Amino acid sequence: MSSGKSSAWVTSADVARHAGVSRSAVSRTFTEGASVAPETRAKVLKSAEALGYQVNMLARSMIQQQSNLVGVVVSGFDNPFLLSLLGPLTHQLALRSQAPLLMDASEPEQLSNSLRQLMQYRISGVILTSGTPPIQLAKEYLRLRIPVAMINREPLLEGVDVINSDNRQGGALAAEVLCRAGARNLVFLNVVTGTLSPSARGAAFAKALAGQVRRGAVKLRQATAGGVSYAHGFEAARQLFAEPSARPDGVFCTNDALACGLIDGARALYGLRVPEDVKVVGFDDIPMAAYEAYALTTFRQDIGALAERAVACLAERMGAPDMPSRTLELPVSLVERRSTQIPSIESTESAKAPVRRRRLVSPPV
Amino acid sequence: MSSGKSSAWVTSADVARHAGVSRSAVSRTFTEGASVAPETRAKVLKSAEALGYQVNMLARSMIQQQSNLVGVVVSGFDNPFLLSLLGPLTHQLALRSQAPLLMDASEPEQLSNSLRQLMQYRISGVILTSGTPPIQLAKEYLRLRIPVAMINREPLLEGVDVINSDNRQGGALAAEVLCRAGARNLVFLNVVTGTLSPSARGAAFAKALAGQVRRGAVKLRQATAGGVSYAHGFEAARQLFAEPSARPDGVFCTNDALACGLIDGARALYGLRVPEDVKVVGFDDIPMAAYEAYALTTFRQDIGALAERAVACLAERMGAPDMPSRTLELPVSLVERRSTQIPSIESTESAKAPVRRRRLVSPPV
Repeated sequence: MSSGKSSAWVTSADVARHAGVSRSAVSRTFTEGASVAPETRAKVLKSAEALGYQVNMLARSMIQQQSNLVGVVVSGFDNPFLLSLLGPLTHQLALRSQAPLLMDASEPEQLSNSLRQLMQYRISGVILTSGTPPIQLAKEYLRLRIPVAMINREPLLEGVDVINSDNRQGGALAAEVLCRAGARNLVFLNVVTGTLSPSARGAAFAKALAGQVRRGAVKLRQATAGGVSYAHGFEAARQLFAEPSARPDGVFCTNDALACGLIDGARALYGLRVPEDVKVVGFDDIPMAAYEAYALTTFRQDIGALAERAVACLAERMGAPDMPSRTLELPVSLVERRSTQIPSIESTESAKAPVRRRRLVSPPV
Repeated sequence: MSSGKSSAWVTSADVARHAGVSRSAVSRTFTEGASVAPETRAKVLKSAEALGYQVNMLARSMIQQQSNLVGVVVSGFDNPFLLSLLGPLTHQLALRSQAPLLMDASEPEQLSNSLRQLMQYRISGVILTSGTPPIQLAKEYLRLRIPVAMINREPLLEGVDVINSDNRQGGALAAEVLCRAGARNLVFLNVVTGTLSPSARGAAFAKALAGQVRRGAVKLRQATAGGVSYAHGFEAARQLFAEPSARPDGVFCTNDALACGLIDGARALYGLRVPEDVKVVGFDDIPMAAYEAYALTTFRQDIGALAERAVACLAERMGAPDMPSRTLELPVSLVERRSTQIPSIESTESAKAPVRRRRLVSPPV
């Protein structure tokens, strides 16, 4: 395209020819700060419209000093929940004629790259998803006066809107579900990442159990996995289940991938049964949670609503950059499956689980 | 930003002030076809450089009629293999100072939206991932003279580079692995999508088995799942295993999600054991394939190489739009896990599987 071949793009030369004006007049019409006679400008705009030149976002972006491109910053690409946000975000941005520019902030070079890109493309705004690293990044955007919205982050920065799932609601409900299922020796499986939603879930879980813990009816402790993935959950099983006399009978995991790993570790390493020996609750409702091998009770984050609200907040902030920060907490839904095995509770079971049965078919591997 | 607030962006006015020239001179320096005296131009460029104005990609894009934005077209966001491509693609594009503009082609409105965006942003090229629908879309891009590269698609269009995993190699190896594991009553589980990689895998599988089928040493039939997901695999288990006298003892599934569903269906619905009663092979090596509950033998597509080659082919085609089409076939690696249980074969086991053991710990659910 750049090698001088003919192109199907309508160029300013085409518009000039059509309008009967000079090419420079066309350029000046679309150039910030350039002077052009009103009737020339009108001719140019009319021809531009007729030829389909009117939709040159690059030209428009230069004039408006913004591009309708929105940076979507992801940290790594191995978190199934984060990936599930990309579809709804792309859709919501398209509804506003905005387009998502994908950026990876998992490595320092990528990070500085993404910042440079932002400056180059006069990006209209940035959506930071959970797991993206330092608050530093958001501060850089703010310094450049680029509007920022964050999904599932702690609301720590003035001038940034935060759209979260209601972690406290989930944590409290997890306590209720595990206790109703008969678990009395409970563990919250935490992670050591910088994002704070795990702590919010754990704090609400502990708060909901505080009375029973005081009365001695329930035991509660916290364990920490080495990371957020399936493999970390599998390893955490050693930590929790190696000592037979100290095994918990109920575990609330801060996300589903950890929970799936923990279940497999409990089964494969110690022959434990879920839910008979240990009940497990996750968070996120990733696709694997509905897999028959896990049938995991979990909390579904409303990814459609998270995306919709994030894009809407960003759009509002583009129009009014100095509005006060907002924090939204969107409700989560309890999805009960066999990992807590309570047949009689009112259920919001997902249609994703291909088969729902009350009795367990014992599946020998 | 657009509301007239002060901005950290360096504007043409800043450059004009710094260079001691008119704002119009700055504009003309960066405007396609506008005339400007060489010494003025030099002053402007020097100030632009000093102030950090030199990296305005929008200006440069207008001049070059392209943007360094590359469209990455995905069809839906529910295929774990496709999502795993996004990381490497983003990384490879960044190495060439290009940025991925994410587009969803799963719905007709999204499709036309994405086309409009392409035209608006003077996109430099497009990468179509497998699963994106009609060849029609690629034709539109070609008509607009936008370079196109496709990943895992049949090479049907002149002027389009195609980067595939070697499906024939995988299909032939799947036959070998299943036969070595002792399976004699084989099924290829196909899907009905428009993409042709499943057929290539099935055809190579059948070809590798042809001699044994002729001699009556092996039986082979094909079954068709209703779609590519876990739930479709689970349903396919009814088709394959409902009739005890006709059960296959080896199944090659066209992707891993199907294979995981099939395994769970075989276990939960019919109490079958994998691999004792039925051996299963998948394709893709998605994260779930390494999960202890599946421990699925599969073929790892080299997503890093697929992304690298696609971005490189696209870059070459940008420089030479009329070069002949190329089709690349990248080798896949066999990853042997317990679903075909052959302890003695040389193995390319993934480090992802947290535990590798020869003997099976029976995990009661």
